[in-house]
Amino acid sequence: MSTQHNTLDCIQPPVHKKKELCDMDYSQDPPRILSNYLVHAPKPFNAEPHLPLLVNAGLITPTDVFFKRNHGPIPDIQLEDHQVYIGVQSHGQSDAGVEWKALSMNDIMTRWPKATITASLQCAGNRREGLAQLKEVKGVIWKAGTISNAVWSGPRLCDILKDIAGVPQDLHNEMIRNYHVSFEADDHVKEDACYGSSIPLRKAMDPLGDVILAYEMNGQPLTRDHGFPLRVIVPGYIGARSVKFLQKILVQPQESTSFFQRRDYKILPPWIDSSNVDTAWDTTVSLGEMNVQCVICTPMEKEVILCPKPVTVKGYAISGGGRAIYRVELSVDGGKTWEPVDKIEQTPDKISGMYWAWALWEKKVPKILTTSEIVVRAYDSSGNMQPEFPIWNYRGVMNNAWFRVNNVIQMPQPNM
Amino acid sequence: MSTQHNTLDCIQPPVHKKKELCDMDYSQDPPRILSNYLVHAPKPFNAEPHLPLLVNAGLITPTDVFFKRNHGPIPDIQLEDHQVYIGVQSHGQSDAGVEWKALSMNDIMTRWPKATITASLQCAGNRREGLAQLKEVKGVIWKAGTISNAVWSGPRLCDILKDIAGVPQDLHNEMIRNYHVSFEADDHVKEDACYGSSIPLRKAMDPLGDVILAYEMNGQPLTRDHGFPLRVIVPGYIGARSVKFLQKILVQPQESTSFFQRRDYKILPPWIDSSNVDTAWDTTVSLGEMNVQCVICTPMEKEVILCPKPVTVKGYAISGGGRAIYRVELSVDGGKTWEPVDKIEQTPDKISGMYWAWALWEKKVPKILTTSEIVVRAYDSSGNMQPEFPIWNYRGVMNNAWFRVNNVIQMPQPNM
Repeated sequence: MSTQHNTLDCIQPPVHKKKELCDMDYSQDPPRILSNYLVHAPKPFNAEPHLPLLVNAGLITPTDVFFKRNHGPIPDIQLEDHQVYIGVQSHGQSDAGVEWKALSMNDIMTRWPKATITASLQCAGNRREGLAQLKEVKGVIWKAGTISNAVWSGPRLCDILKDIAGVPQDLHNEMIRNYHVSFEADDHVKEDACYGSSIPLRKAMDPLGDVILAYEMNGQPLTRDHGFPLRVIVPGYIGARSVKFLQKILVQPQESTSFFQRRDYKILPPWIDSSNVDTAWDTTVSLGEMNVQCVICTPMEKEVILCPKPVTVKGYAISGGGRAIYRVELSVDGGKTWEPVDKIEQTPDKISGMYWAWALWEKKVPKILTTSEIVVRAYDSSGNMQPEFPIWNYRGVMNNAWFRVNNVIQMPQPNM
Repeated sequence: MSTQHNTLDCIQPPVHKKKELCDMDYSQDPPRILSNYLVHAPKPFNAEPHLPLLVNAGLITPTDVFFKRNHGPIPDIQLEDHQVYIGVQSHGQSDAGVEWKALSMNDIMTRWPKATITASLQCAGNRREGLAQLKEVKGVIWKAGTISNAVWSGPRLCDILKDIAGVPQDLHNEMIRNYHVSFEADDHVKEDACYGSSIPLRKAMDPLGDVILAYEMNGQPLTRDHGFPLRVIVPGYIGARSVKFLQKILVQPQESTSFFQRRDYKILPPWIDSSNVDTAWDTTVSLGEMNVQCVICTPMEKEVILCPKPVTVKGYAISGGGRAIYRVELSVDGGKTWEPVDKIEQTPDKISGMYWAWALWEKKVPKILTTSEIVVRAYDSSGNMQPEFPIWNYRGVMNNAWFRVNNVIQMPQPNM
């Protein structure tokens, strides 16, 4: 019997049950080009590209360089079998009372206009290493490569929610102001029955929000590592909200109850650590928009440059909420004096005008001394700037302190 | 002959000519309650309320406590004579080619629904004093009171621009993405022919942008000091964009050419000072959204508290772009250890859900030692936080470094 349903049928989506860790099967994970990555963990596969690859590839990160963040095995989903379930839960209504509708991937790919958005995704844990150096943190100890930029295509979520879930388009509607959209993946993860997350309904319905359901990345069908067959792209937000392997969309009066919305991805206050963390989750808000960030990708810490010529320092900068990068300043004396970078390249979305994609910048530095500390900092269009020093938080998220590179050695090419 | 025109007439608005400083007449300025204010300059009148008044009045600042920022004499405008001129300039079109339409104040007050927005205005120069202590800056040396919160009422600018200027409502329209709305005041100022400024057209047309033309403040007609008979309210932006004494609205492909858009209100880079400032204006972007800010209003520096009981530390916090204040942290040891404040009060707009109004916060501190440095810092909903130390810029704008209060003396009431 076919699992395909007509959109208007009222049906129940499959219910995921949490698996024991020992039942997690990673044998069907896709093959990967490991040479591009610093692999932090094989199961689940978590890897960030080497920093120079990020800037040398140009504004669009090739798919096989894009960072990979997983919480479980990559599900093996068949395009023709996959269904996306959409429902609305009103105030006080039980989960069982929700009327679901199902869309096939063919529906997703043909019923609405295909939007194309260039957007960077950044893990909230990017640069966690800088906080781990201050005090023990919980999480993958990411360096600064847990960010990448790609071109994503698929229907706008606002169109689907309007047509299938009857969500009003008027941004002044009370529902838009108070509701959330929860996403669930068709996967199994260590922490919960499946990966899940939510965003405010306002973000989903805002024509300037540019939230899409992407089935293409860089002009090709999504790869399994990046969410095949369908993922949410929530530009301007932390990567955790761009749920992969999308299976369920629920419009509801509260945030997702998933572990990843309620027990993770929050900037816990500095007085919260492993001893008292359970007291803090419910009083700490979930992360949404990214903060302003800037990183030097090349040269790297302790790099030896065998060339007497000026060195081109390169890196990325980004802010959240569609805010532009307005200025990048570089110091080669540990922050005593600053100069503008030579060039900042950033392109707004061609329809909404929002800045969802990172800026790449570069600056020629005449000579790097072994005593030079190279520091970078950026301003965004809200006048926010990165803090000079990192502020520790237990989950090690949102570290956007000034980025520093030390111990670069520049010397002439030795005689061969 | 009446100066009233039918809306559909094509007419020319009056052209302001720059006045010599010696011709500025301040004799018609309104009377003021000076005791509420620290007056920085009488002509033009620039004054900020004493900090404790700001928090003790509650979330809404009384009109006679609200800070006053002027660039020239207060114009003496008659409600029944005042006209607001609205035009659209297309690419390459000369100023003379613009077709203007005029609205009377009666039109403004009756033809569109009256929206009511509670929004804080903050001068970009708030806390300039903190930057002046580092190096010479240009501008009024404001302390931390150049911010206030009021209830504003009037029509939405998006409605007027749609009906009178034919601006499309579709936020994906190319014009929305690329154009600006310039405002000019019916006044005379020192720096230019009149006060002027602009905002992106997208901000004006966004239903979540909440830009209004206000003729009421705190339920009363605007006072002359606050822009009678009509001012723009651009919530979430620096105060400089909320133009008072509004006379002209021009939709155009570029930012306002006013001094106040092009030669002021920019975060100049730290290597720019009075010696080279002319090289930097055109390459430095204009300010729009506010950054994240937090200030202790009471106790004040060097305050003597004659009471042995716990002291309630109070202050405000705000961010730009409608972003909420998510956390306020207080330290009484100069930033070594932090605690949450006891209470944060902030209310989103009841229609759009955006956070345009400041948060007021307070915390009981058991005892303040003479050696205590009280420090506060806030996080907003984009995960941005204030910088620990101020970064100097020549115009002394957007200083949002951690706010510090020293030399508070707490002692028992002396025997009488």
